[in-house]
Amino acid sequence: MTPFVSGRHFLQTPGPTNLPDRVLRAMDRNAINHRGPAFGALGLAVVAKLRQVFRTGGTVGIFPASGTGAWESALVNTLVPGDRILLSRTGQFAWLWEQMALRFGLDVATLETDWRHGADPAAIARVLDHDREHRIKAVCAVHSETSTSCMTDIAAVRQAMESHPALLMVDAISSLGCIDYQHDGWGVDVTIAGSQKGLMVPPGLAFTAISGKALAAARAGGSRRSYWDWEPLVAANQTGFFPYTPAMNLLFALDEALTMLTEEGFPRVFARHARYAQATRLAAAVWGLDLQCADPAAYAPGVTAIRTPEGHSADNLRAVILERFNMSLGNGLGRLEDRVFRIGHMGEIGVLSFTGALTGVEMGLRAAGIPHQAGGVQAAMNFLASAG
Amino acid sequence: MTPFVSGRHFLQTPGPTNLPDRVLRAMDRNAINHRGPAFGALGLAVVAKLRQVFRTGGTVGIFPASGTGAWESALVNTLVPGDRILLSRTGQFAWLWEQMALRFGLDVATLETDWRHGADPAAIARVLDHDREHRIKAVCAVHSETSTSCMTDIAAVRQAMESHPALLMVDAISSLGCIDYQHDGWGVDVTIAGSQKGLMVPPGLAFTAISGKALAAARAGGSRRSYWDWEPLVAANQTGFFPYTPAMNLLFALDEALTMLTEEGFPRVFARHARYAQATRLAAAVWGLDLQCADPAAYAPGVTAIRTPEGHSADNLRAVILERFNMSLGNGLGRLEDRVFRIGHMGEIGVLSFTGALTGVEMGLRAAGIPHQAGGVQAAMNFLASAG
Repeated sequence: MTPFVSGRHFLQTPGPTNLPDRVLRAMDRNAINHRGPAFGALGLAVVAKLRQVFRTGGTVGIFPASGTGAWESALVNTLVPGDRILLSRTGQFAWLWEQMALRFGLDVATLETDWRHGADPAAIARVLDHDREHRIKAVCAVHSETSTSCMTDIAAVRQAMESHPALLMVDAISSLGCIDYQHDGWGVDVTIAGSQKGLMVPPGLAFTAISGKALAAARAGGSRRSYWDWEPLVAANQTGFFPYTPAMNLLFALDEALTMLTEEGFPRVFARHARYAQATRLAAAVWGLDLQCADPAAYAPGVTAIRTPEGHSADNLRAVILERFNMSLGNGLGRLEDRVFRIGHMGEIGVLSFTGALTGVEMGLRAAGIPHQAGGVQAAMNFLASAG
Repeated sequence: MTPFVSGRHFLQTPGPTNLPDRVLRAMDRNAINHRGPAFGALGLAVVAKLRQVFRTGGTVGIFPASGTGAWESALVNTLVPGDRILLSRTGQFAWLWEQMALRFGLDVATLETDWRHGADPAAIARVLDHDREHRIKAVCAVHSETSTSCMTDIAAVRQAMESHPALLMVDAISSLGCIDYQHDGWGVDVTIAGSQKGLMVPPGLAFTAISGKALAAARAGGSRRSYWDWEPLVAANQTGFFPYTPAMNLLFALDEALTMLTEEGFPRVFARHARYAQATRLAAAVWGLDLQCADPAAYAPGVTAIRTPEGHSADNLRAVILERFNMSLGNGLGRLEDRVFRIGHMGEIGVLSFTGALTGVEMGLRAAGIPHQAGGVQAAMNFLASAG
């Protein structure tokens, strides 16, 4: 038994994110007949709202699944074993996507990074230039690498692909709803997302926006597939009904969350994310701690990974903060295990909750004996008091 | 806009089923860190409770997915394209499973039924007897065919396989939690289930119980797979942590629902299902309507499919009942479209809710002009007043 702790737990992981009460209330209702008229109307409504988030006029698929499932759908609908793809190893999630591709027998060409930058469009362009026979069938990029808090410039990646027919597949799991994302405008073929990050919905829904070109590739081939097949989702976009039982309470939640984002207005939502991210970086600078992301142009809006000084355990810091201050932070993943802690600032979060979270980090640094300068919270307050 | 209708909607579909308030309340809470200690304890708790429902000491996997996904996991973990399986076409869900198997390149030997009986163990035994080379790698059976409300005797199917090494795979999606199910006792290798039927949880979780033999087959081969791979679930059974973000609010719901079933006691849960099923059949007999299931030994505990007289539309009846009495019934699927309506009596349901549902059917028969004898509700009441 965990001992009783007074006060709300501070969930500052980069997903799952905090669930607004309105979203919880929307989810808190009895099931309905998933083949009845009320369900069809719900299905059409959430697809229409998701199109606005992805900024696409095309197909938007919803799977009862984790975001990982949408990755799998991207691969198995368009590619066959032996197909080559190009993937930039920008962090743990790019690496996991690569591992999945290998399991499906794909030939993965990788571009290494130091996990402190986004993917390099120039390097992608060079590889594609050498691929005269167009053996590369898809370029995979992670928009916001949740493990490193580095962004990849997707518009620039598309430009780098200009004279190459490969599909562009983008993991927007921790960017969608946090920053302006343009599936159609950037020419993305497959965008992958999940419910539990910027969209403020519990985990369990995976989304994919699909271009006409990607859909044509799926219709012409792809691997053996059933659950992840896109074709029934095209039909669902017309009817609102899904091929198998949908995760309807999560769809009730999604419908409400998308309404909330629309009410707040996407420009304000994105500005809010940018503000908290900036406040976090200002605090880290005062603390004297390095950001994992070494490129100021690539700072992520939804999460900031911060390095602990050499010889100081990030996991111990997180444990102290959980024990003393009842706050969960994201851990270092893969090669960053115990080297970084990650502050999530995506999804629903008010100013005072966020400054409260930063006070937890600063007090935690002190409690864990990690060398730092006090005053990070003050810097964040100074900024937030005057910003927006 | 649907006009306002006073009173609670009666959800009498055979899944999704009604969500108990306790389950909704359990789900109605903020997300937690899925890599933190509180989550690990939850993961271990639900696995331990699910083992009691499946009656297995082996691996129980939980996927963020519809039950359909657990079907896919059964096929891709153990079989490769070209492998032969034996499947009894007992109804729409068996047929859908067959279609999935074909998409994965399996060679499906089928045994036809009239969709009014369960699978025939003797017919299965005959096919296996002729399979001297053991080309058949798996026998697939649907325990409760939700489309026809006919059960298959799984213990008898296992006996029919006695001298054959094929794996036994069983879809228990609409039987688990409604009737005694014995994964280990019956020698089932892969049992497939979902959250939204007898377990009284919203849709979005798929379960699979896996025998040591099935796990060995998966470790030795199977198709290319990632999301559906069983290996990380074996680890999750030890740690409580999942390979990708779990659908945690649904797990909060599941934990509470399994506690409720344990509190009620499984013998009482199963007796309750049997009682409502019997009451439904008594009512149908008075109404003079035929049951779709023609074998009294195969009546399903969780759903009863009832045929409308020739020339009378079951879909029109359901529409009248929805419009006039605010109740959803299950529709006829596949070849039974418009020919049957299905009364779900699985999951949480009290006596008066259930008799209320039956009054809706009887008044609906009258309103839709379907020839019948009144008095079905009276017969059900007479039975329920004296039973249990």
